[in-house]
This record gives sequence, structure tokens and C-alpha cells, in this order.
Amino acid sequence: MTHNQIVVLAGGVGAARFLQGVVQVAPPEEVTVISNVGDDEEIYGVHVSPDIDIVTYTLAGVVDEAKGFGLDGDTFAVVDGLVRFGADAWFRLGDRDFATCLYRTLQLRAGRPLSAVTAEVARAFGLSLRLLPVTDQRLATMVRTPAGPLAFQDYFVRRRTEDEVLGVEFAGADEARPAPGVLEAIARADAILIAPSNPFVSIGPILAVPGVREAIAAAKAPVVTVSPIVGGEAIKGPAAKMFRSLGGEASAAGVAAHYRGLVGTLVIDELDANQAGAVAAAGVRPVVADTIMRGPREKANLARVALEAAGLSAREWAAGEGGALEPARHEP
Amino acid sequence: MTHNQIVVLAGGVGAARFLQGVVQVAPPEEVTVISNVGDDEEIYGVHVSPDIDIVTYTLAGVVDEAKGFGLDGDTFAVVDGLVRFGADAWFRLGDRDFATCLYRTLQLRAGRPLSAVTAEVARAFGLSLRLLPVTDQRLATMVRTPAGPLAFQDYFVRRRTEDEVLGVEFAGADEARPAPGVLEAIARADAILIAPSNPFVSIGPILAVPGVREAIAAAKAPVVTVSPIVGGEAIKGPAAKMFRSLGGEASAAGVAAHYRGLVGTLVIDELDANQAGAVAAAGVRPVVADTIMRGPREKANLARVALEAAGLSAREWAAGEGGALEPARHEP
Repeated sequence: MTHNQIVVLAGGVGAARFLQGVVQVAPPEEVTVISNVGDDEEIYGVHVSPDIDIVTYTLAGVVDEAKGFGLDGDTFAVVDGLVRFGADAWFRLGDRDFATCLYRTLQLRAGRPLSAVTAEVARAFGLSLRLLPVTDQRLATMVRTPAGPLAFQDYFVRRRTEDEVLGVEFAGADEARPAPGVLEAIARADAILIAPSNPFVSIGPILAVPGVREAIAAAKAPVVTVSPIVGGEAIKGPAAKMFRSLGGEASAAGVAAHYRGLVGTLVIDELDANQAGAVAAAGVRPVVADTIMRGPREKANLARVALEAAGLSAREWAAGEGGALEPARHEP
Repeated sequence: MTHNQIVVLAGGVGAARFLQGVVQVAPPEEVTVISNVGDDEEIYGVHVSPDIDIVTYTLAGVVDEAKGFGLDGDTFAVVDGLVRFGADAWFRLGDRDFATCLYRTLQLRAGRPLSAVTAEVARAFGLSLRLLPVTDQRLATMVRTPAGPLAFQDYFVRRRTEDEVLGVEFAGADEARPAPGVLEAIARADAILIAPSNPFVSIGPILAVPGVREAIAAAKAPVVTVSPIVGGEAIKGPAAKMFRSLGGEASAAGVAAHYRGLVGTLVIDELDANQAGAVAAAGVRPVVADTIMRGPREKANLARVALEAAGLSAREWAAGEGGALEPARHEP
């Protein structure tokens, strides 16, 4: 088999780092990323797509590694300029990052769909994988809290995930349609991976687009996810808190229960090896691996574990390209 | 008389430099600037008001002196970022300048009039004079050329004023109304000055707003203008070319003929002293002075000449404030 089709459902930082591993062990041309858009928001007059841009910048090698988002070495003249006029500039969008969002906005305003602009921006950053927003329609993740419903960026950035989460809703989801290529990629995939992203607010909005969950359930490909919960905590972000407040268990077994019926295999961390039985009891096959993505080697290993769990062998597509653990060939 | 009311009709760079003189010899609180908006355009999704911003930045002491517009030391990450995506970024808008335009855009979109936003931005930059757009409506200067009608920025920036000008039109002028305060300022003015700006594309749009020309003609105040043409050429910009192609004469006398019936006094340069008779023959009183605004002293002197030509004495309002030729007290 020369050409595999690998689909990855992706949120932000965790997904981007996982994808840095995937493109080391598989040709990026064989990878389709289906990206969460529930975090998208109009800020300072421009359409911000946090997860799409995090994936793009990370794979292009230009992300601000310390923050996990934004462009390395970016400046903040626009936001600081707005502050001069008394604007409440709680969203620190860098100037070059702003340019990305502004270009997207101008193109959307000209009538182009988000999927077309996303592909164009990804190409401009040198990516050769396929990056698809899950939908071209507006789907807004809303977080229900004791302080009332909050738009995602408000909850996540402005209020630093400090509110208790009573529920998560996806405004507009009912009217959303999968973006062109999404259902096709899922149907013909050889492996469907769910990145170690927040199940509620990163993967949840993807699965909320009518037809996507059904397409994954009907797909011929094995579905493998990597637990975003390690040792009872999220590597990053509020996933563990959400598991607790939404009635689940912040554990590998809780992740398995959450994805039960959709996911065949869950890759759990070595730290959680003692939960393998509980994961299996939830009807999901456990695979134990090192899931902490410290560097390029750990990222590649985790991607290899996930792909092998889906029945693909890294050796097949890495053959003749110098071995699977070479640095990414297509994204610098 | 303690409080004079001075109205200045203003275009861009020439007007801003003239105003740097005016605020040296008169308290800025007594000055109302009526600004051209015919150059305004939506660029990169933001409302650019070139003349308003040039006046604001210049009087705030933050203009890029070498260019005459934009902010000193500004960066260009947004425009350069757009270029990455193939945008035709012929308009080099700096990042902090962009922030000004973005703030304006967001406020306009929220329903505030241009005049309110302009006043707020001027205050944020520390100005204490009153800066009024001539109208809150959209009025677009269109330049007729052999290549067809061109929007002003297209003619002026993109095509570098290289097209022959067959005519100038002001789209939207018929529906435009003077902004709040414009007619009142003119009516109660003690002096009405027309800055040494392009009569066709800087002052023309101001006079094209229905009611403005009539208000000036009916005003009690003397009307004094400073010739933008010196030695048959414009200090800056395409004014001389326009005089020639539009059937006038690129000379002090040509300026007098252009403003005949509206202007009582024309300040002409010493270089053009031999045209005093021709100016007088056009029905306009000539006053000869050094009109080349090399530095703060020359700017102040020119402003003093213009105000004295309008019957005001610099001594009156400068009394007790350290002399008329002190550096500006209110704008750094």
C-alpha cells in the first residue's frame, strides 16, 4: 500500500504537537486535518481561527513555542495602538497573526468559504498536508457557567478558564454542514486519529456538525485517539476540570467512557497503565505508550504508536525516505 | 478680544505644517480645523482618513517627518503579512497607523459618526484644537484621467499622480451634509484660513459639501488663503499639474482666479512678488511673505501673516503666554 489516507481530528496546541509527530512518520500529502472552528471569533474586526492557525503556525515551524500559539517574534503594535484609544485589548493578537486573520476576513467578506481561505493560508505557510475546517458555517462553542453563558474565547482567554463549566453548547451546529472534503476524507480514510485535544471543546464541536459523527461511525478505518488526560490531569487546558464538572472522570478510563462507541483504541500514558483494564471495560482497546510530547522524537513515536494501533505500519510509508524518525520533510 | 475663533480649511501635509504654525501663534483651543475627507478610503478592511490622520499625527509631534504622513518609527508587519498571501499591498499602512484606522472602523461600524471618532482620536493624541471632518457622510474624490475615473488613493498613491487629470468629481457630495459644528464654526469665525493645500483635491471636496461654500461666503470673517503654488510649482503634490491640465494657470495669479469670489486675501511667496498686480487684478488682495515652511519659525511667521491679513493681531492672543514664537504649548 503506497498511499494511505490519514484523517486527524484536531483542536489547538495538543493537536498541533501531535501532528508534528504525524508528519514525521507519514508523508504530509497523505494527511487530512479536520480542524475545530468552535473557538473562532470576530475580534478587533477580524475573524480569528485559533485552532486552524495554531496548527498552521506549528507545522510551519513559526509558532511561538513558549506560548503554543501566535507567531514567534511577533510584534503587538496594532493591539497596543487600540489600547491607546481605550479599547479593552484582552486578546493579545500579534501583528503578523493579525495579518493572517485580516486576510481571512477580507476573503470571507469577498464571499469565499473558510475552507478555501484555510487551504490558501496553509499553502502560503508552506504546508503540504490538507487542513480543513470541519465546517464553513459559523459554529460557536458556548460555555455555560454560573456567571452565565460565555463565548469560548471569553471563557478561555479573558477569564482564564476559571469559571466552573456547567455545560458546553455549540451555537449554530444544527445548521452547520461539513465543509467540502470532510465526509469524503473520513469515508476513504485508512486511519482516523483523534488528537490529544480537549474532548468537550476541541473535538466536541467537530463531532457536533451533523453528519461527521455518523461518518466516523460508518467509516471503514479504525478510530484511534490519544488520551489528553494523564495522571488525572490535562497536559494543558481545562479538560480535567471539565471531566469533573460535567459528571465524568478525569482519567484515561473517563476518556474511554466519553468516546465509547466512536473510538476503537485509546492510547494511554505509561503513567496510567494501571487503567488499561478500566479502559477495556469501557469497551475501548487500550494501548499504553509514552504520550508526553517533549520533543520531536517523542512526537514521532506517539504518532507511530497511534498509526500502528490503527493497523498501519510506519515502515510502509517511510520506506525509501530515510526512516520514520527523520525530521519533517515538508514542514520546516 | 480674548477669544478669537479661527477656522482653517485643511488638506494633508501642507495644511498640517501650516497648522503647526497656527498653534504657535494662537491658542489651539481657539482653532477649528475643517478637514478634507475626499481621500478617505476603505483599505485592507479599515477606514483610512489620510488628511485627518496627517493633521493629527503632525500636531501630536509623532508624524514621520520625512514622509509627511504615517507615524514616526512605525512598523509594517500587517502589510507585510498580507503580502505573504499575495495581497497587492500598494498602500503602505504602518501597524500603529493601522490601529488608528481600525479603531475608527470599529467605532463607525458601531454607529458612531466620523466626527465623533475623529475628535476622540485627536484627544487621544493630545490635541486640544478642534478637528472636524467636513462631513460625516461618504464623499469620495474621483479623478478623471485618460485611463478612466480613478479613486483618489489609486491616482495619488498607487499610480503616483502620473495620469493626466481631466477633471475632479466628488462622489456623494450632493447627499453629504456638513458635520455637526462645521457651519457654526464658520459663522462665528473671526478668521477663516485656507491652508496651502491643493485647491482641487484637498480644498475642493470641502467646498463641495452643500452649504459650506455658502457659509464661507456669508461669514463675517475675512477669508485668507496661502498659495500652494510657488514659482509656478507646487511645494508638494500634483497641484501645479492640475492647474495646467484643468485650464487654469499654475501661478499665484491662477490660485487667485481659482478662489475669486470666496477669498479676500491671498498670501503669495516672495518669489512671486511680481504677480501681486495680477492677483489684485483677479479681485484678490495680495500679501507677500515667505511661504516656504522650512522650520517652526517659518511656520509661525506664515501663520502670523495669514492671521494678520485676516485682521487679527498675533499679539492679542499671545499676550501673557511668552510671545508668539514660542514652541507650541499644547501639542508636543
